[in-house]
Amino acid sequence: MTIRTKFEKLGTRHAPGQEVRLAPTAPERTRHEPLPGQPVDFSHGDVDAHPPSPGAFEAFAEAVETGGAQAYTEYRGAAAIRETLAGHLARFTGAPVDPQDGLIITPGTQGALFLAVAATVSAGDKVAIVQPDYFANRKLVEFLEAEMLPVQMRHAEVTDSAGLDLGQLEDAFRAGARVFLFSNPNNPAGVVYSEREIAQIAALAARFDATVIVDQLYARLRYPDVPYTHLRAQDIAPENVVTIMGPSKTESLSGYRLGVAFGGAEIIDRMEKLQAIVSLRAAGYAQAVLRGWFAEPEGWMKHRIAAHQAIRDDLVALFGAIPGCRVRLPGAGSYLFPELPPLSISPENFVTVLRERAGVTVTPGTEFSPHAARNIRLNFSQDHAAAVAAVKRLALLVEEYRG
Amino acid sequence: MTIRTKFEKLGTRHAPGQEVRLAPTAPERTRHEPLPGQPVDFSHGDVDAHPPSPGAFEAFAEAVETGGAQAYTEYRGAAAIRETLAGHLARFTGAPVDPQDGLIITPGTQGALFLAVAATVSAGDKVAIVQPDYFANRKLVEFLEAEMLPVQMRHAEVTDSAGLDLGQLEDAFRAGARVFLFSNPNNPAGVVYSEREIAQIAALAARFDATVIVDQLYARLRYPDVPYTHLRAQDIAPENVVTIMGPSKTESLSGYRLGVAFGGAEIIDRMEKLQAIVSLRAAGYAQAVLRGWFAEPEGWMKHRIAAHQAIRDDLVALFGAIPGCRVRLPGAGSYLFPELPPLSISPENFVTVLRERAGVTVTPGTEFSPHAARNIRLNFSQDHAAAVAAVKRLALLVEEYRG
Repeated sequence: MTIRTKFEKLGTRHAPGQEVRLAPTAPERTRHEPLPGQPVDFSHGDVDAHPPSPGAFEAFAEAVETGGAQAYTEYRGAAAIRETLAGHLARFTGAPVDPQDGLIITPGTQGALFLAVAATVSAGDKVAIVQPDYFANRKLVEFLEAEMLPVQMRHAEVTDSAGLDLGQLEDAFRAGARVFLFSNPNNPAGVVYSEREIAQIAALAARFDATVIVDQLYARLRYPDVPYTHLRAQDIAPENVVTIMGPSKTESLSGYRLGVAFGGAEIIDRMEKLQAIVSLRAAGYAQAVLRGWFAEPEGWMKHRIAAHQAIRDDLVALFGAIPGCRVRLPGAGSYLFPELPPLSISPENFVTVLRERAGVTVTPGTEFSPHAARNIRLNFSQDHAAAVAAVKRLALLVEEYRG
Repeated sequence: MTIRTKFEKLGTRHAPGQEVRLAPTAPERTRHEPLPGQPVDFSHGDVDAHPPSPGAFEAFAEAVETGGAQAYTEYRGAAAIRETLAGHLARFTGAPVDPQDGLIITPGTQGALFLAVAATVSAGDKVAIVQPDYFANRKLVEFLEAEMLPVQMRHAEVTDSAGLDLGQLEDAFRAGARVFLFSNPNNPAGVVYSEREIAQIAALAARFDATVIVDQLYARLRYPDVPYTHLRAQDIAPENVVTIMGPSKTESLSGYRLGVAFGGAEIIDRMEKLQAIVSLRAAGYAQAVLRGWFAEPEGWMKHRIAAHQAIRDDLVALFGAIPGCRVRLPGAGSYLFPELPPLSISPENFVTVLRERAGVTVTPGTEFSPHAARNIRLNFSQDHAAAVAAVKRLALLVEEYRG
């Protein structure tokens, strides 16, 4: 594969946040009246509406005062911070975390994901990937010139599980996949894998000696009475699981670029070797912000979850009121993944019209699965009133363009 | 190649800053008396001795106040900051920089280097690499499963150029190399390429339609009367040059992890696509620190250069006084790369003994070239008195182990 072909497949045209680089549309497509209202960018969360967890900036400022000792850490991150994190993460996930050899601090969870995949997948390898799932998963596999074996998740057809097709996962392992990568809670659908699904994934991984990389970025933002099962606490060889988390979403600390990966020592060691040539380390001063992670003030997380639950419920009701629109109530996280009714214009054009006429930015479903052309993803971590008004404008446009 | 083999080649055992992960040596090797003195870690600069350029933290704090708009930027970095940087970098290098399509902000210059190489090199490609040069260059080529074609730099044998073997570079291009990667000023030797060398590199690149990636990390820390030639301002197709810089070294801003790459739009575009799956973006708040880059207070850079020149001169004199030691006066940057006389123990053991008995950490020459086993690299951006005392202890150990 030439380098040009390789990068043509790595499109970011519709990637969240990149809309600013799109050329303005030809006038005929926007000759209709604009729908006025406060613009809402649902492609990512609004950290002004849901501000960073307290103490983050103060921890950063203190690290700058500390100086060189915090600027230059081990590539895997400062030992004392890893020690603190390991305790929190072990309690949270229900299985031990080795701060010395089993944990690495990365520039964002995106950094952790890249390192974990690149540390376990070579050119020509087969990798099982869920559809739909976080769009970068597929792109990482393509960049490494590996082969993706898709596993369908029928999230809209069930209510008590994620709807993963476990038969397809077994087939993927049988066909030679030795790495399985998935997000739980799922991005974009906001569904949580059931205890049975996680147990089955663990059993299949054990049977085929496969490595499982689980992106648990949203695992703290769970709505009441939604049970959550940590894969790493199941009956699975610890060296075959890498768990990824970070404070960019629920805690609104994205501006500091922090993530962690924890799991088997050999894979973490490879990830550090790779980080040494990719970005050296997560910014030294920023690492100190992690001292406050899992140590937020009493009630802070409860309040954040309640605020998101209220927005979720309002938006789900609005989508539910659009005839022909299918939407499942997310059990965790801040993503909604409604399937719109058939429209008279292409989904791609609808997303453009929505942005240009209504000031509403959403991410097309095809970023997450080739089978989700009629879906759109919304990160509803927004100003509550503005989000409700934006989805009302969206509903008006659905009626205008109904097919 | 299996993933295990691939990562075995990616060693970080002797990487600067990773010494803390080395197991303590067997007692017999450290049974000798320690040489007391303030420990000095020459593997990287001391940002406490040479503090960050003024205003950096204030710019960061302001960005945190700005909130979401600065936390979530385009993957290539905030447009307004790119605009400011493009002006500074065009003036500094003497050729235009396109802020919209020709510049990307990255997590450190290491991030820029990784993206530039991965955006231009595929598995099986041939890449010309200087020996000695920054150790990550070789590792990047190996990670991408490309082939390295070494080009010798005889820095110790000349005084008016870097000593690059231009015949070997031409041979490398003839043998199929289409990418040439080098640092100027050279890390580890601190030498600056002459105008003639840069002109020849430009001519060869044009003749073979090759891409040149030039790491100019230390291009601002130049000692008086040392001429410097920017490759990108020479007679070379702008789309075939990527220039990398950053404020981590001279400006001591490493704790913020910032770098920039600027050059042809197509390569910068590929780099952004890759950044989207590797780390998303340089930390949003940290990007704002770049507003103060190339805008330091009057006299600040002059003072910083003078402080380093004084340390350089003292250390070069100390090494020059060791019989059989060869050292060239660096024209730029804060690296010294002396060749030690033959010793009775292996270079690897000497580096260990030096660290364990004298508290002096240096980087073995073999990290930079297989032909530099007797060299060591010192980053002399240290406390002046402590650095002088440390090199005196080193000189004592050279005598003790002289072969």
